[in-house]
Amino acid sequence: MAKGLLIVLSGPSGVGKGTVCSALRQRVPELIYSVSATTRVPRFGEEHGVNYFFKSREQFLNMIEQDQLLEYAQYVDNYYGTPRDFVEETLNSGRDIILEIEVQGALKVKEKFPDGVFVFLLPPSLDELKDRIQGRGTENQATIDHRLSVAVDEINLLEYYDYAVVNDQIDLACTRIESIIVAEHCKVRK
Amino acid sequence: MAKGLLIVLSGPSGVGKGTVCSALRQRVPELIYSVSATTRVPRFGEEHGVNYFFKSREQFLNMIEQDQLLEYAQYVDNYYGTPRDFVEETLNSGRDIILEIEVQGALKVKEKFPDGVFVFLLPPSLDELKDRIQGRGTENQATIDHRLSVAVDEINLLEYYDYAVVNDQIDLACTRIESIIVAEHCKVRK
Repeated sequence: MAKGLLIVLSGPSGVGKGTVCSALRQRVPELIYSVSATTRVPRFGEEHGVNYFFKSREQFLNMIEQDQLLEYAQYVDNYYGTPRDFVEETLNSGRDIILEIEVQGALKVKEKFPDGVFVFLLPPSLDELKDRIQGRGTENQATIDHRLSVAVDEINLLEYYDYAVVNDQIDLACTRIESIIVAEHCKVRK
Repeated sequence: MAKGLLIVLSGPSGVGKGTVCSALRQRVPELIYSVSATTRVPRFGEEHGVNYFFKSREQFLNMIEQDQLLEYAQYVDNYYGTPRDFVEETLNSGRDIILEIEVQGALKVKEKFPDGVFVFLLPPSLDELKDRIQGRGTENQATIDHRLSVAVDEINLLEYYDYAVVNDQIDLACTRIESIIVAEHCKVRK
């Protein structure tokens, strides 16, 4: 049986990765979603194994040591990572799996899965991205400026990706990603 | 302005290239269709510049000499070829153009346009292809056997193509080709 495809959806913070990924899962229910592991406490309504695999710090550090994570990162005081087993089992069963992940993490996944399909979600423009980052309304100007400068650095990593999808409208972005998945299944592997 | 894409649709004789290409043109009217040049006489209802550019033998040989054809071939007593100008003008204007062409001709086009998108149309199975070739009902057994063996040789050239699309249903084949076009427009050019 042919292996499934690993689709990695990434892009700068604020570009709408989460929204596009949720819409895509609605439209393509057979696409499996990679669930991250984290040490942070569950928020109201979050379920273990659905939103995240909730782990203790000790469990997480153990997963790192056993090379059970495709990538991981620390934000504030918590760890986040992608469990390797679930991805490999899904691919071996012939099903496609999608990872929604930060730009740096995606590049780490690429080292381990160079045959993955790496999709970079772009904002329609930098002004638009600025509006979206500001629109969250929870951060001061210095933080916003910092986040925007990080985003610009991340966009410069686009060259390491296979596809660039502009997130001008969620529906259009989903259609493009669905087309990429169909096309990749038609690709002649050499 | 970004250049258009050159889509080359090929595959063994009997696979249904013409039918799929016509259906695709109905579904994607903005896709430009490359019109071939030929020395054969027009059939009833065929229009110059629509079905073919009808040329005299002398005009055709002159086009060959002036390198005005991306590829050409002789079948029975007539020449058939792809005029280069029309393809280049369409691409430079930013529009996509599709060539529906025999397997050998497609490989010649690839020498001149390595960045083209080469799509190989496959029969669902060899038995199915045999049925389709026989189904025309106009040829004797030796001719049918010969055509089938040529088809098998052509399918072995699949590795030189970018995509393989199974023509199990015309609608599905069209959807796959449309997806390939959308995906190719999202590709990060390196």
